Amino acid sequence: MDYFEAVDKRYSHKELFLPNAVPASDLERIARAGLSAPTGGNSQCVRLVILKDKETLRPLCEASPHAGLASAPAAIALLTDRRVISGDLNFEVEDYSAAATQMLLAATALGYVSLWLDSPYFDQDKQQAALSALGAPLGCHLWATLPIGQPAGAGSRRAKLPYNQRAFYGKYGAGDL
Amino acid sequence: MDYFEAVDKRYSHKELFLPNAVPASDLERIARAGLSAPTGGNSQCVRLVILKDKETLRPLCEASPHAGLASAPAAIALLTDRRVISGDLNFEVEDYSAAATQMLLAATALGYVSLWLDSPYFDQDKQQAALSALGAPLGCHLWATLPIGQPAGAGSRRAKLPYNQRAFYGKYGAGDL
Repeated sequence: MDYFEAVDKRYSHKELFLPNAVPASDLERIARAGLSAPTGGNSQCVRLVILKDKETLRPLCEASPHAGLASAPAAIALLTDRRVISGDLNFEVEDYSAAATQMLLAATALGYVSLWLDSPYFDQDKQQAALSALGAPLGCHLWATLPIGQPAGAGSRRAKLPYNQRAFYGKYGAGDL
Repeated sequence: MDYFEAVDKRYSHKELFLPNAVPASDLERIARAGLSAPTGGNSQCVRLVILKDKETLRPLCEASPHAGLASAPAAIALLTDRRVISGDLNFEVEDYSAAATQMLLAATALGYVSLWLDSPYFDQDKQQAALSALGAPLGCHLWATLPIGQPAGAGSRRAKLPYNQRAFYGKYGAGDL
């Protein structure tokens, strides 16, 4: 799919998924797109756990339940391994966000819908339970899980502000010249 | 350009740019791709200042000099307007990172090279000087500037870890089944 078409088609799918399986080759393409994203200082601290079917997804769903993940036929969890981050500058939020963005677009480009699902992992107890379900070692943090699949119905999109209220020319607040 | 081709071609261009101008229509396509990225809670806190030529870029370059920006024929600065962020949850790093990622890919898809340039704005004095050069109101933060143009020479890429050291199946550390 053309890049700009993928950008236009991507949306946050908050409704149900069809049970149709996602081929492992598609999950790998999505994961590879995520790991191709830039990382600050090339730390490459982002780690992915690919949950290829409902059976594999179940422990994570039970550890930190969320409706956005419950019907998904597959998902990819995004973690950072903080043990590989050195120095004063920590870019793990930027790094995982860039990877998530490239994966959401990759899923869209392959005809799937997805969602940047982070809220189940804010709570420290659920974060620990989810890390344990994924078998992640000490020093890892789970940032988000992207459910991946085909939509059970048309998803809704939230309205965006007009372009010229967010993009300026030359100076903040200035319109096109 | 195909989405996955753009992902493969994107790299962090840290060398010189050719002086060739970037058409305003291309800068707008890149900016629109950035503003199409998801934002936490749909806050849409990301703001862009498009610096369409060297003349327009000069005040920012003088306020917070960096070799990565010095030869660029155009750039887009990424800010957040913290006044529109409400509640306890602040996703501005995720939000600007998603926008930056979509813009880097958009630049690549249109045949340009770019760079996620954030280091000039870490220092608080330079942050203030840069915000002032951009005419940004109180409550804004400048996160990064993306220089955009054609490369003066072949850019170098840093090595990436093998896929199976960063992507796992089912459990952290587990290989493909």
